[in-house]
Amino acid sequence: MALIVQKFGGTSVGSTDKIKAVAKRVLECKNKGNDMVVVLSAMSGETDKLTGYAREIQSIPSLREMDMLLSTGEQVTISLFAMAVKEAGGDAVSLLGDQVAIHTDSSHTKARIKKVDTDLVRKHLAEGKIVTVAGFQGVTDEGDITTLGRGGSDTTAVALAAALEADACEIFTDVEGVYTTDPNICKTARKINRITYDEMLELASLGAKVLDIRSVGLAKRYKVPLHVRSTFTENEGTWVVEEEKKMESMLVSGITYNKNEARITITNVPDQPGVAAKIFLPISDAGIIVDMIIQNTKAGDMTDMTFTVVRSDYDRAMKLLEKIIQDIEAESVSCAKEITKISIVGVGMRNHSGIASTMFHILAKEGINITMISTSEIKVSCIIEEKYTELAVRSLHEAFALDKNNEPVEEENPEPVSE
Amino acid sequence: MALIVQKFGGTSVGSTDKIKAVAKRVLECKNKGNDMVVVLSAMSGETDKLTGYAREIQSIPSLREMDMLLSTGEQVTISLFAMAVKEAGGDAVSLLGDQVAIHTDSSHTKARIKKVDTDLVRKHLAEGKIVTVAGFQGVTDEGDITTLGRGGSDTTAVALAAALEADACEIFTDVEGVYTTDPNICKTARKINRITYDEMLELASLGAKVLDIRSVGLAKRYKVPLHVRSTFTENEGTWVVEEEKKMESMLVSGITYNKNEARITITNVPDQPGVAAKIFLPISDAGIIVDMIIQNTKAGDMTDMTFTVVRSDYDRAMKLLEKIIQDIEAESVSCAKEITKISIVGVGMRNHSGIASTMFHILAKEGINITMISTSEIKVSCIIEEKYTELAVRSLHEAFALDKNNEPVEEENPEPVSE
Repeated sequence: MALIVQKFGGTSVGSTDKIKAVAKRVLECKNKGNDMVVVLSAMSGETDKLTGYAREIQSIPSLREMDMLLSTGEQVTISLFAMAVKEAGGDAVSLLGDQVAIHTDSSHTKARIKKVDTDLVRKHLAEGKIVTVAGFQGVTDEGDITTLGRGGSDTTAVALAAALEADACEIFTDVEGVYTTDPNICKTARKINRITYDEMLELASLGAKVLDIRSVGLAKRYKVPLHVRSTFTENEGTWVVEEEKKMESMLVSGITYNKNEARITITNVPDQPGVAAKIFLPISDAGIIVDMIIQNTKAGDMTDMTFTVVRSDYDRAMKLLEKIIQDIEAESVSCAKEITKISIVGVGMRNHSGIASTMFHILAKEGINITMISTSEIKVSCIIEEKYTELAVRSLHEAFALDKNNEPVEEENPEPVSE
Repeated sequence: MALIVQKFGGTSVGSTDKIKAVAKRVLECKNKGNDMVVVLSAMSGETDKLTGYAREIQSIPSLREMDMLLSTGEQVTISLFAMAVKEAGGDAVSLLGDQVAIHTDSSHTKARIKKVDTDLVRKHLAEGKIVTVAGFQGVTDEGDITTLGRGGSDTTAVALAAALEADACEIFTDVEGVYTTDPNICKTARKINRITYDEMLELASLGAKVLDIRSVGLAKRYKVPLHVRSTFTENEGTWVVEEEKKMESMLVSGITYNKNEARITITNVPDQPGVAAKIFLPISDAGIIVDMIIQNTKAGDMTDMTFTVVRSDYDRAMKLLEKIIQDIEAESVSCAKEITKISIVGVGMRNHSGIASTMFHILAKEGINITMISTSEIKVSCIIEEKYTELAVRSLHEAFALDKNNEPVEEENPEPVSE
C-alpha cells in the first residue's frame, strides 16, 4: 500500500463531468489499496473570472483581499470533488489550506510555504477517506488566507507529498508527460520516461507547460518522486527523480527553446572597473530580469556588452539605457528582438566533452549563426535568429538521436506505480 | 459615535458596480464617525449556480461539502467589497465566519450560532477599518465550515450586532421597509415606521420578503434594534424594536395573507381520548408541518377535525390520512386547496376587545365566508376562499384605517440613525 498525492489542474476539473471522471479515476486508485491525497486547482476560467471582478473594482487590487477572493476557486472544486467521490461509492473529505494547515509567510499572492501539518490529513486517511486539499492556498500565523502564486497547486501537491513522506506525487495535466522537445515543431519528439530534477529545472520552458518549476525545486529538496502524466489516458508519463546511474548514458535529454527574450548590445563601453554594475544595477532596480550576459573585450580599452532581457521588458530597458550609456560614455546601444535561445540539456554531458562543440557544428552546418553562448554543468544555450528556431530544434533533435528511444531499459521501477 | 452593523443581500451586491455603490454608501456612514460592520450575502445567482453544480454531481449532496461549496459565495463578495472600500479611499478588511469566529453547532446547511467572538472584529474597528463579514457561514468546534440556512446572512448580522452590542442592525433590501400589507394587491399600503419584534414575527409572510424571521427572534432576544430599509434610496425604512408605549394606540399594524396552505377535514371522527394524537403523530413524523387545527364537536360521540398543511405537503398528507382514517374509524377525509389564511396583526389588540369581531363583520359584509379561525394575543387569522384574498386584504386595510398614517408622531428617535 502506497501513499500517493495526486494533483489535477484546472482543465482536468473544468466541468462537473470532468470532476466526476477525476473522482472515478482517483477512487480506482484508492480501491487498489493506496492512500490518496488529491490536490485540485480551480475550474478552468474561474480564476480569470474572479481576477476580472477585482480589476473592475480596484486598479491595483489589495493583495490580502485578492487572496481571499481567489482562494474560493479551489474551495469550489474540492467540495464538488468530495461529493463526486461519495456519489461514486467512496468516502472523501475536503480540506482548505488553513484547515490542513499549510502555513505560509504573509507575502500575499506569492506566499511561500513554511510548514505543512499532517495530523488532520493522516486522521482522515486512517479513516479510509480520500482527502482532497485545495491547491494554491495557505494560511498565515495571523489566520489570513494566502495564495502561492502561479503554479501554486503543483507546489501544494509537492509540499504535501514531502510532509506526508508520500511514495509519489503525481501531477496530472493535458499532455502525456515531458517531451524531448516541443512536439509542435518536431514530429519525432518523444515522451521522456525518466528525467532528473536538475534536468527538469533546466528544461524550464518545456516543463512550464506541464509543471511549475518551483515545485520541481521543492521535489528535489525533499526527494519527492514526481510523476507528470495525462488526465486523459492511463499511460505512464514522465518520472522526475533523483539521478540514477543508468541515466548517464544519455548525453542529451531534451532540447528547449525560448522565444521570449530580446538581445541588447552596448558598443564601445570604456572598459573600467565598475562599469558592469553601472549598467546592470539600474536595470535590476527597475525589476527587469537579465538572463545571459556576455562581455567581449576589443582592441584598446573598449568592450562590447551584450545581454538578454525578457521581451516584454525590452522597451523599459531601452529607455533606461539611453541615460546609462551617456553616464558610462559608451558609444551606442543596439538590439535584436527576433531571437531565440535554444538549449540542450542533459546530466550525461557532465562526463562527456564535445557536446557543446557538436551543437555548434550542427547549427553551423545548417547555416545558423550563433550570437551568444552560455553554458552550465548540464546545459548549453545559444542565441540564434528566431526564424531558424524550428530548423535548429529539428536538427539538434536528430543529431543527438533524441528521436530514438535510447533511454536505458528500465529493469525495475523503483517508484511506486499508482495504477 | 455609534457602532452599526449593516447587512446587504444578494441583489444589493449582484454586480461589481453594485458592490462599489454599497461600498460608497457604507464609507459615507463611516465618515460620519460610526464604526461599521458590514455583512454581505453572495452575489445574486451565485448560490443557485453552485447548488446547480452540486446537483449535477450528487443526487443528495453531502451536507458538509455543500457548506464548503456554498460558503465561497459570500467570500467572493466580502473580498470585492473590501477592495471597493479601499478604492474609494477608505480602509476595510474582510473576515470569514471561521475567522471572526462565528461558532455554530455542526448541523450542516442549517447550523445554529452558539457564540460569536468579537475580539478580532473590535481590533480591526479600533484600527479604523470597516469590517466586512461573510454572511450565512460559521465554523464548528472541529473547524468545519457550516452555513446557517435560508436567510442566514440576516442571522449573521443580528448575531454580530448582539455580540458587539451594536447600536443598530440595518438590513438593506430592495424594498423600502415593511408595509401594512402587500402593496401589489392594495395600493394604499403604507410603509410602517416602527413595529415591535412580536408583530414582525406574526407578520412573517410580509416580512419574509424583506427579513428572515429567525433573525427577528434573535433580535428580540438580544434587544437589537433592527432597521429594514432600501439599498436604493436614502429613506428611513421600518424599525423593528421593543414595544413602546405609544405603539398601543395602533389597533392593527399590518395585514398579511398566506396562499400557501391547504385545508384538510376529517369527518365523523369517533371522539375518544388519544384520537388527535393518532392523526397528528404520523403526520409530524413524516416532517409535515400542521398550522391551524380546529375540532368541532358534533352531536353524539362524533367530531370533525380540520387542519391546514403547507400546500406542497398536501399530497403526502392525504396519502397518510387514507390509512389513518381506517385506523381511527373516521368516515371520510375531504380537502380544499384553494384557500388563503388572512391575518391582522397588532400589539394594540391586546388591550382592545372587539378587534376580532370587527374583522369577521368586515369579511361578512363583503360576502366572504370564514371556514377556520385562530387567534393569538396579537393576531387574528381566518381561512377564506382564495379567490377573495385581494378583496379581503383591501377591505380590512381600509376598515382598520391602515391607509392613513395614524402612527403616533415620533417626537424623538431613540435609535441611532446611521445616515
